[in-house]
Amino acid sequence: MSFNEVPRIVENGRIGQVDATKIPRYAGLGTFARLPEIDDVSDVDIALLGIPFDTGVSYRPGARFGPGHVRQSSRLLRPYNPAVDVSPFARHQVADAGDLGVNPFDLEEAIRDIEHGSRALHERAKRIISIGGDHTIALPLLRTMAAKHGPISVIHFDAHLDTWDTYFGAAYTHGTPFRRASEEGLIDRDGSMHVGVRGPLYSKKDLSDDADLGFDIFSATEFDYLGFAGAIERIAARVENRPVYVSIDIDVLDPAHAPGTGTPEAGGITSRELLGIIRSFKNLNLVGADVVEVAPAYDHAEITGIAAAHVIYELLSAM
Amino acid sequence: MSFNEVPRIVENGRIGQVDATKIPRYAGLGTFARLPEIDDVSDVDIALLGIPFDTGVSYRPGARFGPGHVRQSSRLLRPYNPAVDVSPFARHQVADAGDLGVNPFDLEEAIRDIEHGSRALHERAKRIISIGGDHTIALPLLRTMAAKHGPISVIHFDAHLDTWDTYFGAAYTHGTPFRRASEEGLIDRDGSMHVGVRGPLYSKKDLSDDADLGFDIFSATEFDYLGFAGAIERIAARVENRPVYVSIDIDVLDPAHAPGTGTPEAGGITSRELLGIIRSFKNLNLVGADVVEVAPAYDHAEITGIAAAHVIYELLSAM
Amino acid sequence: MSFNEVPRIVENGRIGQVDATKIPRYAGLGTFARLPEIDDVSDVDIALLGIPFDTGVSYRPGARFGPGHVRQSSRLLRPYNPAVDVSPFARHQVADAGDLGVNPFDLEEAIRDIEHGSRALHERAKRIISIGGDHTIALPLLRTMAAKHGPISVIHFDAHLDTWDTYFGAAYTHGTPFRRASEEGLIDRDGSMHVGVRGPLYSKKDLSDDADLGFDIFSATEFDYLGFAGAIERIAARVENRPVYVSIDIDVLDPAHAPGTGTPEAGGITSRELLGIIRSFKNLNLVGADVVEVAPAYDHAEITGIAAAHVIYELLSAM
Amino acid sequence: MSFNEVPRIVENGRIGQVDATKIPRYAGLGTFARLPEIDDVSDVDIALLGIPFDTGVSYRPGARFGPGHVRQSSRLLRPYNPAVDVSPFARHQVADAGDLGVNPFDLEEAIRDIEHGSRALHERAKRIISIGGDHTIALPLLRTMAAKHGPISVIHFDAHLDTWDTYFGAAYTHGTPFRRASEEGLIDRDGSMHVGVRGPLYSKKDLSDDADLGFDIFSATEFDYLGFAGAIERIAARVENRPVYVSIDIDVLDPAHAPGTGTPEAGGITSRELLGIIRSFKNLNLVGADVVEVAPAYDHAEITGIAAAHVIYELLSAM
Amino acid sequence: MSFNEVPRIVENGRIGQVDATKIPRYAGLGTFARLPEIDDVSDVDIALLGIPFDTGVSYRPGARFGPGHVRQSSRLLRPYNPAVDVSPFARHQVADAGDLGVNPFDLEEAIRDIEHGSRALHERAKRIISIGGDHTIALPLLRTMAAKHGPISVIHFDAHLDTWDTYFGAAYTHGTPFRRASEEGLIDRDGSMHVGVRGPLYSKKDLSDDADLGFDIFSATEFDYLGFAGAIERIAARVENRPVYVSIDIDVLDPAHAPGTGTPEAGGITSRELLGIIRSFKNLNLVGADVVEVAPAYDHAEITGIAAAHVIYELLSAM
Amino acid sequence: MSFNEVPRIVENGRIGQVDATKIPRYAGLGTFARLPEIDDVSDVDIALLGIPFDTGVSYRPGARFGPGHVRQSSRLLRPYNPAVDVSPFARHQVADAGDLGVNPFDLEEAIRDIEHGSRALHERAKRIISIGGDHTIALPLLRTMAAKHGPISVIHFDAHLDTWDTYFGAAYTHGTPFRRASEEGLIDRDGSMHVGVRGPLYSKKDLSDDADLGFDIFSATEFDYLGFAGAIERIAARVENRPVYVSIDIDVLDPAHAPGTGTPEAGGITSRELLGIIRSFKNLNLVGADVVEVAPAYDHAEITGIAAAHVIYELLSAM
Repeated sequence: MSFNEVPRIVENGRIGQVDATKIPRYAGLGTFARLPEIDDVSDVDIALLGIPFDTGVSYRPGARFGPGHVRQSSRLLRPYNPAVDVSPFARHQVADAGDLGVNPFDLEEAIRDIEHGSRALHERAKRIISIGGDHTIALPLLRTMAAKHGPISVIHFDAHLDTWDTYFGAAYTHGTPFRRASEEGLIDRDGSMHVGVRGPLYSKKDLSDDADLGFDIFSATEFDYLGFAGAIERIAARVENRPVYVSIDIDVLDPAHAPGTGTPEAGGITSRELLGIIRSFKNLNLVGADVVEVAPAYDHAEITGIAAAHVIYELLSAM
Repeated sequence: MSFNEVPRIVENGRIGQVDATKIPRYAGLGTFARLPEIDDVSDVDIALLGIPFDTGVSYRPGARFGPGHVRQSSRLLRPYNPAVDVSPFARHQVADAGDLGVNPFDLEEAIRDIEHGSRALHERAKRIISIGGDHTIALPLLRTMAAKHGPISVIHFDAHLDTWDTYFGAAYTHGTPFRRASEEGLIDRDGSMHVGVRGPLYSKKDLSDDADLGFDIFSATEFDYLGFAGAIERIAARVENRPVYVSIDIDVLDPAHAPGTGTPEAGGITSRELLGIIRSFKNLNLVGADVVEVAPAYDHAEITGIAAAHVIYELLSAM
Repeated sequence: MSFNEVPRIVENGRIGQVDATKIPRYAGLGTFARLPEIDDVSDVDIALLGIPFDTGVSYRPGARFGPGHVRQSSRLLRPYNPAVDVSPFARHQVADAGDLGVNPFDLEEAIRDIEHGSRALHERAKRIISIGGDHTIALPLLRTMAAKHGPISVIHFDAHLDTWDTYFGAAYTHGTPFRRASEEGLIDRDGSMHVGVRGPLYSKKDLSDDADLGFDIFSATEFDYLGFAGAIERIAARVENRPVYVSIDIDVLDPAHAPGTGTPEAGGITSRELLGIIRSFKNLNLVGADVVEVAPAYDHAEITGIAAAHVIYELLSAM
Repeated sequence: MSFNEVPRIVENGRIGQVDATKIPRYAGLGTFARLPEIDDVSDVDIALLGIPFDTGVSYRPGARFGPGHVRQSSRLLRPYNPAVDVSPFARHQVADAGDLGVNPFDLEEAIRDIEHGSRALHERAKRIISIGGDHTIALPLLRTMAAKHGPISVIHFDAHLDTWDTYFGAAYTHGTPFRRASEEGLIDRDGSMHVGVRGPLYSKKDLSDDADLGFDIFSATEFDYLGFAGAIERIAARVENRPVYVSIDIDVLDPAHAPGTGTPEAGGITSRELLGIIRSFKNLNLVGADVVEVAPAYDHAEITGIAAAHVIYELLSAM
Repeated sequence: MSFNEVPRIVENGRIGQVDATKIPRYAGLGTFARLPEIDDVSDVDIALLGIPFDTGVSYRPGARFGPGHVRQSSRLLRPYNPAVDVSPFARHQVADAGDLGVNPFDLEEAIRDIEHGSRALHERAKRIISIGGDHTIALPLLRTMAAKHGPISVIHFDAHLDTWDTYFGAAYTHGTPFRRASEEGLIDRDGSMHVGVRGPLYSKKDLSDDADLGFDIFSATEFDYLGFAGAIERIAARVENRPVYVSIDIDVLDPAHAPGTGTPEAGGITSRELLGIIRSFKNLNLVGADVVEVAPAYDHAEITGIAAAHVIYELLSAM
Repeated sequence: MSFNEVPRIVENGRIGQVDATKIPRYAGLGTFARLPEIDDVSDVDIALLGIPFDTGVSYRPGARFGPGHVRQSSRLLRPYNPAVDVSPFARHQVADAGDLGVNPFDLEEAIRDIEHGSRALHERAKRIISIGGDHTIALPLLRTMAAKHGPISVIHFDAHLDTWDTYFGAAYTHGTPFRRASEEGLIDRDGSMHVGVRGPLYSKKDLSDDADLGFDIFSATEFDYLGFAGAIERIAARVENRPVYVSIDIDVLDPAHAPGTGTPEAGGITSRELLGIIRSFKNLNLVGADVVEVAPAYDHAEITGIAAAHVIYELLSAM
């Protein structure tokens, strides 16, 4: 073997992961799951896009290091997913599109950067899973989605509603993307919901505003009574056969499962519950997704990164 | 805005948190939940009292840094609690009474310091939630409670019984407060119980002694079969309409949820289960509470501190 | 008391733990649970054997420090187990046999070292619980078991199957012990199973190979639907009254519960679930066990070590 | 003692620290060095001002948590400084002015907030030591200084020049404050210098630009040959008797001494060297200072925070 | 090799370390430097004694875990010391005497425990090096020393004087041992000194009191001008040929070198400087020593523990 | 800008780093210093080669993750090195050759893999700087060097001699590469030396063996008396104008500067000293280099990784 030959698994004509029986998993420049870079493949079905940006964060910053951390934490992923009997990298051509270069000093320009970048990528890739970055990025990503699909269903996993209005006069932060998206008509108000919401709010009006913006809520406390099977049922009933965008703030997980995030709230769901719900999405029409708010400086032993990587793997399997 | 103007939320005439839309949550000297200090308000309904003391610890010390850590971890709390539809800071005037100055070198004097301090505070505040500190502090706090209410029900969340007798000849340590309290007649022996107990004991006699001292047990293994709904039911049946003091050792949580504590035991409950139980206490007559044994040197990314802060928030909401 | 007098609990003629009411739990050279070293007792019923070895690891190394870390994390264990009403150190003479000296530079010699060492120990002790080290060690331990009992049932707790074939041409690694053991006829193919398996595989064939090697699977996702009570039932039905060897890879736990391991996978089980299952083994005929893959460099506040220590304690109680 | 009586050291009529012989150092809401809050004293000589802001950071964010962390790390400071035979809190009335509320989402508004806040504070306090926050804050602070003193000498400790021009089109970031300050005429171009600079630059032109902007350089490599005594001499010769503003980026220290910062560079100076230089400033005319770029999420055991706290203590002693 | 055969290096008839070419350094129950336990040898020249106690600590507790941590950090030590051309374990019979069981709840009883324990050990061992534990332990150790040698020279390495009087009314804490020792006549007031002192004091009187108690000071700032060669000279001149006890608080090192301690002060000395000084002690008449204040919960990657282990190794070499 | 356009600095026709004014330093798949991958350039002057391998480690493993960690820690490097007035990426075409795929389970095969890989790379690149991995890798790298240059001078920075013979019967480990290299005739015995050696040895014979193998020693203790200027002089005198290979074990640094390594020894040199020495190598004829033994699991805030990245940067500048 030459000094830098990279043997890859190829299945169904799709170029997959670096072959771990020949190159150890800890070796090599790390794309997501050691998949090919986008310029090394053609006909991309699903692209993974890093969006290292955290200027919209209101508390602990650091999600700008999220994409690299999630990639590093994804090295153990293997090709076959027995939970849903799918080999996602053989069924779709998946590729890592690298990171968008986003302006860290100007929120509005950053949002434009992300909108343009994701639109450009869509010309190369049928679907995109974005890796944040903070939740601000969901707004430009939804603009790109809506430009393609019209107002779409959003399934939003989060400890928080993210439908607040302004913060320090700023309309665009990680607490407001879904209000802005609803106001801009990007969201299907009959098919959208939050899952895993918990913790205190500013006021009771947050809830009525949120409903007016078109969101249903399956809160974390409902998991106690209905389990994640209940969540699956409610999501399916809400979404029906609409095109769906899934936006996952990693803080939907309990801080025990995801310490590495910016605004943690006790009483969250487990990684087993979250993965179980996502597996049910194979029955939905997923047109895009993001996984956001991984803040590596607060992570330990990559447990948050690994949870995010598995979430992305299940999203890929469900697509 | 002047250099140190501190805009606060005022609701129902009660002075609440610093307004987070004007002063970021990470800014400012940190009282609990960014509430006012006690000297800045009158007619205090509930006071939060730090008791930085850990000389009673038998294994990992460090809970002396607990009050500051829990305050720091409480900065994200917001005013409205949707889980129980309550705005705790608008319903009660809540204030931070700071920390008691307790002698770290003499256990018995420390206990006197705490008893005197808590009595003095009770002249200013109707109810107190204490933030430990190790569990030794529950004894003087129960003396203060009993002086006011007579023998009271104690709901004690802990991995351990804390009804041991002596340790190295010391009668007063973090393993003995509830034996001493029962012996001193501070506890209603018909209305008290432990919740979440697990892990090995010294001997079978620990259990019979404990029963003799007036405690019922809902163990962590019972959560497996009866769930936290079972715990809620058992607690309600045990307590009835008695005045109740709630004492929460954070090690009742599994080490995954609360690594930052002195004597962790595997197999604990989750923060979601604990918060769920506390929410049910809105139906009880809570006269006081403590949250103890947060040892920050062993915490990670404040997950233990955040769990403790949410527990206190739910106690405030339930009062 | 002399400078190094070590008072011990003696019950039923069995020499037990250092008396924690006289020597604090954090003091003294640490054997497992502060039990006697093997040379200080006779008639050993159960020996604890450290096997500090991690050359078979494919991802994060460090389990060579596992035995010392688990011992350090076991200092809080006490003599009486109320969950199963047993005093394990009074019922059996348990002793710490120290660590095997294993060659870190030659996998095959290391396997011979472990086989010889465990056989030699069996001449002194009726049963052995080994503390890894990586999972490679299960193969020589099963050789020792099979030499004594013939092909035996194996209950294998793990996120992974560990029945892969070769890796970089190496037949003996931490991913292959159960394939090798089955090929060598060490395992009862009608009485063995994996519990807690999850996460992606190399291919669908991994599952059929695994079945051919004689393993049944109770996956982590089945916990979602059947609970750990379902696992208990399935294990009992599979094992019947065969002699059973229990091999526990700590990564069967979710990374939230066991960050300190080499190949973590999201979506695992909780320590409460794992301990609950092991308690049910009092009804089985346990002839040996191992607990492996604790990698301390990735642990935090000993939470992985404490989980492992409690697992061993329940194994001792079940024996 | 009442529950919240706070006994303080009073010397020369100046209200000093909480008395540590009565209230343990780990107790109480933590102002810097447990000094009084500004509203509790009159005639403030020196005010400590937290500026929790990090939106100008180009790499690791997190300095928004710097002020709180430095305060927490300052609890061990005592009243008398034997190295320079000064009791700083008895010679000056020192007080903690709390934190400025600064907009995290808009760099230019934030700079205005800081300029206004520091001007307002100067009406109450003769001198200010600011605790960052990232280095962006030096610009508005220098505007306030220059408004009072005219162009002033700046002694700037840093691994970096911080005289870069723009970054992503942004004129105001943590890499540009001294270029902007020089352009705005805030700096005395004959009396300013950098100390401790090291590590790679964008180009050789950075050096000539920097000289044109009025800065002399004493680089970290010069410490190897001239020692910190050499630095003291060079600084004194450069500054003469001009009014001096000292701006200390904690990354002037080696990462071994200050891991908790945003853009660490190997080969830095030690805390002993830095403290030694600052002690020599008792001979200068210090009119203000800042200590910036402490990023707690990357600190360990508060070593960066403690270094910063000691630096501030020596600045106070030198004033 | 049997399962627990422990091959040891034997030189000059002295039983030394476990042979690292046969048992890896990370294996086995860890005595200091893998030396024999005291009961396994006769004619002990130097005993290492752990004193796990930290109730005298005024700030960060945790030194109770110090002895175990220093032992764990000493596993890499080898038999021959080239810096002074000595094989310490071949020249003296060195053995690990384990830990004293000390009451954590009663300071005065603890001091008696330590005095009795160290006296009893002196009947077995000619010299003792104690591993703390907090600095309170120096007082009873000096009582034992003085009982044997009369008032002796003390070379005390520390950031602090430790000659304070009382704290919260307590005469015996980690800040007072050398005042008490001087008052009790245990110290040769003409031959004692502090090395490495730095940081703020309570008042100028601390210095005059300290001088009255018989101590000379070589402060950390003197290292800047005289280097550690200056310290060596000053120590030799002070001590002459008196019997010397060396007491080393690990916080004499800069926090960069020793983060794992209870009251860290910036501006300390390096491990290279400290080791260099101790090497010069081969010319002194060392009769005993202690190394204290290692607080593992604040250590990182054992760097504090390793520094302490090397310090002890040089003390052994110098004896 | 397209979604994945990567603007690069090009100077003197050489393709350099990603332009940090357009793509933030934390963004993008991370090659060393964000330089191009080798397949994206022609005429490579210097290649950086990761060798993720740690099976030769005798104590703490984990250096297999070293190459990725050093790359991640190199993101802040900029193009111009003012300390030596060189723009290394403009003077040479530097490229990242990725990682060699090395067998982790068979030391001898791994050594062959590395020898073959480095030879193959030499056909593409004039010089190689390897990033380990443990020190075992120096042997095959020296074979490649000697094949090209004949026996060469080796300047070896390390706390240890690495000229031990065998360990557990293994001839090839991280403690033996320079003995093997000398025995194989790969080293110029008149021009080789160790720098920074310290800490205990197995026996005095280690030193005479080492001299016989052709090494001179400049120990860490000599830094105390001769400074790093003394080291520079001694190295230059030893090497003269021979072709030189520089092998840097990061543990030559004190653990305060490099906690993230496998066999740390107190009393090491500082990063400022090490960088200062390497800068002097611009006068030597450097034909190759390696930087080894970075073990990320023990690093904190990347301080070890950053030190290694700066070391490599100075090596590149000196070439």
